[in-house]
Amino acid sequence: MSASKSKGRVLLAYSGGLDTSCILAWLIEQGYEVYAFMADVGQEEDFEAARKKALAVGAKKFFLEDLKREFVTELIYPAVQANCIYENVYLLGTSLARPVIARGMMAVADKEGCDFVSHGCTGKGNDQVRFELAFYGLKPDIKVIAPWRIPEFYSRFAGRQALLAYAAEKNIPVQQTAAKPWSTDENLFHISYEAGILEDPNTTPPADMWKLTTAPEDAPTTPERISIEFARGIPVKVTVPAENKTYTDAVDVFLALNALARKHGIGRIDIVENRFIGVKSRGCYESPAATILRVAHMDLEGLTLDRNVRALRDQFVTVELSRMLYNGHWFTPEREFIVSAIPASQRTVNGVVRLKLYKGNVVVEGRLSDEGLYDEKQSSMDELGGFEPTDTTGFIQIESIRIKKWAQANIRKGQAGIEPKDVYGTRV
Amino acid sequence: MSASKSKGRVLLAYSGGLDTSCILAWLIEQGYEVYAFMADVGQEEDFEAARKKALAVGAKKFFLEDLKREFVTELIYPAVQANCIYENVYLLGTSLARPVIARGMMAVADKEGCDFVSHGCTGKGNDQVRFELAFYGLKPDIKVIAPWRIPEFYSRFAGRQALLAYAAEKNIPVQQTAAKPWSTDENLFHISYEAGILEDPNTTPPADMWKLTTAPEDAPTTPERISIEFARGIPVKVTVPAENKTYTDAVDVFLALNALARKHGIGRIDIVENRFIGVKSRGCYESPAATILRVAHMDLEGLTLDRNVRALRDQFVTVELSRMLYNGHWFTPEREFIVSAIPASQRTVNGVVRLKLYKGNVVVEGRLSDEGLYDEKQSSMDELGGFEPTDTTGFIQIESIRIKKWAQANIRKGQAGIEPKDVYGTRV
Amino acid sequence: MSASKSKGRVLLAYSGGLDTSCILAWLIEQGYEVYAFMADVGQEEDFEAARKKALAVGAKKFFLEDLKREFVTELIYPAVQANCIYENVYLLGTSLARPVIARGMMAVADKEGCDFVSHGCTGKGNDQVRFELAFYGLKPDIKVIAPWRIPEFYSRFAGRQALLAYAAEKNIPVQQTAAKPWSTDENLFHISYEAGILEDPNTTPPADMWKLTTAPEDAPTTPERISIEFARGIPVKVTVPAENKTYTDAVDVFLALNALARKHGIGRIDIVENRFIGVKSRGCYESPAATILRVAHMDLEGLTLDRNVRALRDQFVTVELSRMLYNGHWFTPEREFIVSAIPASQRTVNGVVRLKLYKGNVVVEGRLSDEGLYDEKQSSMDELGGFEPTDTTGFIQIESIRIKKWAQANIRKGQAGIEPKDVYGTRV
Amino acid sequence: MSASKSKGRVLLAYSGGLDTSCILAWLIEQGYEVYAFMADVGQEEDFEAARKKALAVGAKKFFLEDLKREFVTELIYPAVQANCIYENVYLLGTSLARPVIARGMMAVADKEGCDFVSHGCTGKGNDQVRFELAFYGLKPDIKVIAPWRIPEFYSRFAGRQALLAYAAEKNIPVQQTAAKPWSTDENLFHISYEAGILEDPNTTPPADMWKLTTAPEDAPTTPERISIEFARGIPVKVTVPAENKTYTDAVDVFLALNALARKHGIGRIDIVENRFIGVKSRGCYESPAATILRVAHMDLEGLTLDRNVRALRDQFVTVELSRMLYNGHWFTPEREFIVSAIPASQRTVNGVVRLKLYKGNVVVEGRLSDEGLYDEKQSSMDELGGFEPTDTTGFIQIESIRIKKWAQANIRKGQAGIEPKDVYGTRV
Repeated sequence: MSASKSKGRVLLAYSGGLDTSCILAWLIEQGYEVYAFMADVGQEEDFEAARKKALAVGAKKFFLEDLKREFVTELIYPAVQANCIYENVYLLGTSLARPVIARGMMAVADKEGCDFVSHGCTGKGNDQVRFELAFYGLKPDIKVIAPWRIPEFYSRFAGRQALLAYAAEKNIPVQQTAAKPWSTDENLFHISYEAGILEDPNTTPPADMWKLTTAPEDAPTTPERISIEFARGIPVKVTVPAENKTYTDAVDVFLALNALARKHGIGRIDIVENRFIGVKSRGCYESPAATILRVAHMDLEGLTLDRNVRALRDQFVTVELSRMLYNGHWFTPEREFIVSAIPASQRTVNGVVRLKLYKGNVVVEGRLSDEGLYDEKQSSMDELGGFEPTDTTGFIQIESIRIKKWAQANIRKGQAGIEPKDVYGTRV
Repeated sequence: MSASKSKGRVLLAYSGGLDTSCILAWLIEQGYEVYAFMADVGQEEDFEAARKKALAVGAKKFFLEDLKREFVTELIYPAVQANCIYENVYLLGTSLARPVIARGMMAVADKEGCDFVSHGCTGKGNDQVRFELAFYGLKPDIKVIAPWRIPEFYSRFAGRQALLAYAAEKNIPVQQTAAKPWSTDENLFHISYEAGILEDPNTTPPADMWKLTTAPEDAPTTPERISIEFARGIPVKVTVPAENKTYTDAVDVFLALNALARKHGIGRIDIVENRFIGVKSRGCYESPAATILRVAHMDLEGLTLDRNVRALRDQFVTVELSRMLYNGHWFTPEREFIVSAIPASQRTVNGVVRLKLYKGNVVVEGRLSDEGLYDEKQSSMDELGGFEPTDTTGFIQIESIRIKKWAQANIRKGQAGIEPKDVYGTRV
Repeated sequence: MSASKSKGRVLLAYSGGLDTSCILAWLIEQGYEVYAFMADVGQEEDFEAARKKALAVGAKKFFLEDLKREFVTELIYPAVQANCIYENVYLLGTSLARPVIARGMMAVADKEGCDFVSHGCTGKGNDQVRFELAFYGLKPDIKVIAPWRIPEFYSRFAGRQALLAYAAEKNIPVQQTAAKPWSTDENLFHISYEAGILEDPNTTPPADMWKLTTAPEDAPTTPERISIEFARGIPVKVTVPAENKTYTDAVDVFLALNALARKHGIGRIDIVENRFIGVKSRGCYESPAATILRVAHMDLEGLTLDRNVRALRDQFVTVELSRMLYNGHWFTPEREFIVSAIPASQRTVNGVVRLKLYKGNVVVEGRLSDEGLYDEKQSSMDELGGFEPTDTTGFIQIESIRIKKWAQANIRKGQAGIEPKDVYGTRV
Repeated sequence: MSASKSKGRVLLAYSGGLDTSCILAWLIEQGYEVYAFMADVGQEEDFEAARKKALAVGAKKFFLEDLKREFVTELIYPAVQANCIYENVYLLGTSLARPVIARGMMAVADKEGCDFVSHGCTGKGNDQVRFELAFYGLKPDIKVIAPWRIPEFYSRFAGRQALLAYAAEKNIPVQQTAAKPWSTDENLFHISYEAGILEDPNTTPPADMWKLTTAPEDAPTTPERISIEFARGIPVKVTVPAENKTYTDAVDVFLALNALARKHGIGRIDIVENRFIGVKSRGCYESPAATILRVAHMDLEGLTLDRNVRALRDQFVTVELSRMLYNGHWFTPEREFIVSAIPASQRTVNGVVRLKLYKGNVVVEGRLSDEGLYDEKQSSMDELGGFEPTDTTGFIQIESIRIKKWAQANIRKGQAGIEPKDVYGTRV
């Protein structure tokens, strides 16, 4: 296409890989002016090589944004405060990075006058949704070009060979290493593995797939002790006696925990999860620091958070915020709403947790806090500590009022529950 | 007291230990006729010695009920189906045993004409509430004698020395072994440790406290592979290749998993939890089989349970049933209500999970099922499998309608979210 | 198109109106064989005229299914049992009819070998989603033709004039009455009004819009008393003393309440609601019988339903089932799951509610039941009725344990709450 | 008792009635120094007469605190913002007043050095719990004297005659008007009626019981139109064209709505509710202004609040805050937590609602707002307004993915849902 006039300026989420390099070339071919964007969210990457490649393929400009700090402080730590987790297992590492990347892109698009934005996400996954909903929540008039959902594109490039041929045609340099039989996404929080051989949910991931963590079997045979201090639910100090070090900077804290967890084989998971589009999908993840922080933070909440606040927060904030993160609903009114309740839930979550790390295990060995909601005397089974046992009698009597009424009605109807029920038999 | 006429007949929950033996003697002294009751819920216990001791102290009758099977099938397996857990950590081992014990007692009380029931629970704990609410939910006219809440009793026996003196006076045999500096409660599901030195939440439990499980450090250095088959969310077969064995009986399945988990150091936890009466309390637990079952069952649900059913079940059934169990609300209308939803949630939870057990870790290595909710082709990133990528464009556009409206309003108000917010700074 | 071979057989949801008659003709023009389907769900309609018209336009067969009874017993009464309501106001009249209509269509499609199904729903509304998700939930291989979402169709027929011209061309008879400036959907539960002049949310609906109910201003000046008996939460008898009549048949009960409510001006609502696709939309509705049943059923639950069951049911079943109904998620696993909990919630909802109907008001004047959960003596402020007031002291003391701990911590931190906070000032 | 030394200083919640006057005398008799406290929360009361009476009976000091403004701004308006309601019917009028009264008392107790506080609440009701938990949440070391839970007191004064005799003995003046056969509690939000003849839930309240509102039958035959403006969910202006008046002061707004609702017979309710202690109890209430505000606020939320925020707020904040209010959990960490989410939920709730008031009915006739979440063009059924109908096809296809999978599995198992189920038959 030799148009004298560009169709417009596109900011492309560029990874340096085959897919987005071909998309870059294809967008130019389609008549767009393309700027390439990369976010540094802590992934292992040769950003300089990527820059050169993007410009070589034809990008007019290249932007690299270091978003690590905001990733940690604006996304990861609120998720730690709220104990976010998806379907009981997945710690949301990819989901958490998307909002900062999308925001970084919209800031550039805004400043550089890009009317379009593009990305290399497939048409079946979560990331396309996460990116695009984030774009629209920040810049509702942005126009999205998603090549893997454009029939003209995906029909033409149906398979790796077609991409390689196109790369050759366009002089796009291709890494000679064989492609791994799975896809990955990495950032400082985690790495994900999916697709390829992992699509059979009964296939055990090969040992050499795992990149970030030592296998528990290969981890040190000696446990290591550390402690983490939290202020309002945020980790503010990590102490590592074996290294004779402490870490207090927000990013340093997270990276230090990553290093410790990686060494001790902590943070691997393997699940079948439900994507936002309703397709079940198998994913493997390594989330080293996040796994330690989850154990430590939840433990400290036991000591410092009121029971009823915790119960409400678990049932509403944790569940709902996790779902919002997974589904890419960060820049939405409901996320704004639910996150507004976090500070009040964490006001008292101050204290220190002592941990033992050993071959995949994160073991709490003790915790302390000045909050004073735990009262050793009151809790004690050995002394009354100001407690009147007779009060409990009243408590139980009042608690039993409606239960007795129900039981009396059951008895009148011949439905009393004294006989065992063969529930099991009818169930299996 | 030498009354010719008894104050009535009491069924006492008897443990064979110092406390309930003294209570037995005291109740007789108070003018009651006492029957002693023991439940076999899988704890390690010399029941015959206990029987002799109860009768020696003065019990008119002694009842031993084997409740292991109903404990497993009526309480434990529904809890497995619903992934029950309290405050993210505690698997509810003590809570689960209480309803079957209480029901066993009420059945005997009913048959033997006991107007009263008594127990040795302290006045600060959960178990008094669990037992008594269960009694009232089954037999609302039962009268409860809770000595540790009767000032006359607890003032008189304020401390172990007073009990020992009374035991001597009443010729109650006392074990010569020194009391452990913590209390325990054991059944086939778990053992709990609390009180004593554990009351300082920063004290690491001594290595010799743990009774049921090998320490991960001492567990075998070779991983072991097993598989568990579930039908409607209930484990129906455990296969242990190393032993060349399979287990299919409901109780056998659970005991086999217990043995495996104990060997591999699986199932220890240590938490500060919130008792029903609102006191924070530190507890340590070993729940071997339950820990394996939780991992395996949740994993299989990933493969076989619809996303929306899972989300609703997690938020409502899991959370609410766990709380009911913890608070002793088993024989209540709300438990009847919430449990009625379990079967519909487990209709499709059929399949096999393959696990690796290694030094405290339960690792899922694969899972399979005939349910067909997972579709490898549909999930695949390498082929379309009938999927139309353009559909996702429509989906995202529709999903973004209200988000764009919100973003447009934000922009009009100058509240757009493109600039990073210093949330972290204001939080810590 | 003069194809010798049909593209396939389509079952068209036919209404007899201009739109679906044109669609019928257009589908034939496109090369399909068309069967027409009408459901009698209690709307005011000349079914015979519609039949003649469909066949005249070219339908090969015409099916009329009377679905009133299953509409009442399978959809409406479960919704009454669960107090379903959307966004606090809308009683879901259209939503409730869709599943029975869709099921009726799929049964015919199955029996008559129709590979396709078609409807006249617009592309912005809820009904297209409700119908199609129901089709897919029953017959996942059905193919849907939604002309108002096909560019070829909606571009050609952009406006009433184009439809009228096409009708003239195809000899489709058109009613000469002027179209109302709003759309309606009617069934025995309700009528809805939307679109046209109602799209301005500040426009008061004209008095002559309301079709089913008398205006409260014009309703009788004398109140009328009736009573409704419920069994397991389902209305099983309506007694109307003024008519000296009782109604016990499921459908009769509903129709009798409709007649009473219509006469007394009961059941009009006017809201701005949120459609499933995320667009806000203004709707007006008349739901006469449903409004009475809601008041009566909720009142009886006060007398007969345990507090905790009610609270859980309200928060989960009512909210979730209402949303599922609104969004067209009836034939889904989550609906199956949530509905499975209804029977256990309604086991005790047996009794009679006495009502006064007067000019838009439904006033409860009394209720009675044999369930026995309400105990006049126990409730009485004039006698103890077996109640020990000292128990409440214990209850309050136990309830206050964690609150006192929190208050003590606040005081230590200087955050005690004794001083009024100027919350209002900071809010407005 | 003629002690030279006082047992301490008690601040008594004094009402001026027979009960608290006798309690005042009795506390003095018991050796306490008594200060009397009255709160003006808008009830109809002769405060000066009460002051004289308290001092005449023996109170050392008398405190009257005008708490109307903080009642309206700190309790009522947050409840309006959150649409608080208990068990679908009760608008929480008594519950809302308790925290401000309790705080007023604790402020006086703190300033005047009262170690004790006392009240005349019965031992079966909610108010004792609400007051005492509020006391403890503000001043955890306060000691509460609740005479109606002290056997010595309630045995001695078992019945009105005993109180009258004691009043005569102590020269306490008694009003000669016959006691009403029910109890009431009044404040500017509402009046409650309970006990006495109302304890039979089938007794229709006598017409002369209702005090605040005209009966709908006697209300004006001409409807009246008003409008209410909200800012962040709080009513900030009421316009009454018939009076040619507007009200903007927080308290004036509420009182003006009270006057309007009272005149038009709005706000009566009659329910059987579940007290916190688990006893069912019948109550009748008049909540005039609150009933109007509820209708208007919820309506405006339809126009101005995002769907997902609304749904989450309804399910969590509304339900949980209502329960906390009812159970007297205002000064608790969980209330602090849940209320912290209100502002983010009301940021966009700005606009005006137009209402018609007529014989018990509050009818919304229109609403408008500048928030822009409602878009007439987008909503329109007559024009596309930027909407792509094909997007909905994609949306429905994606939404149906998991539903089709489920349906296919059902078909394979022979469990497809095309045949009607006789649910009704099995239910009734």
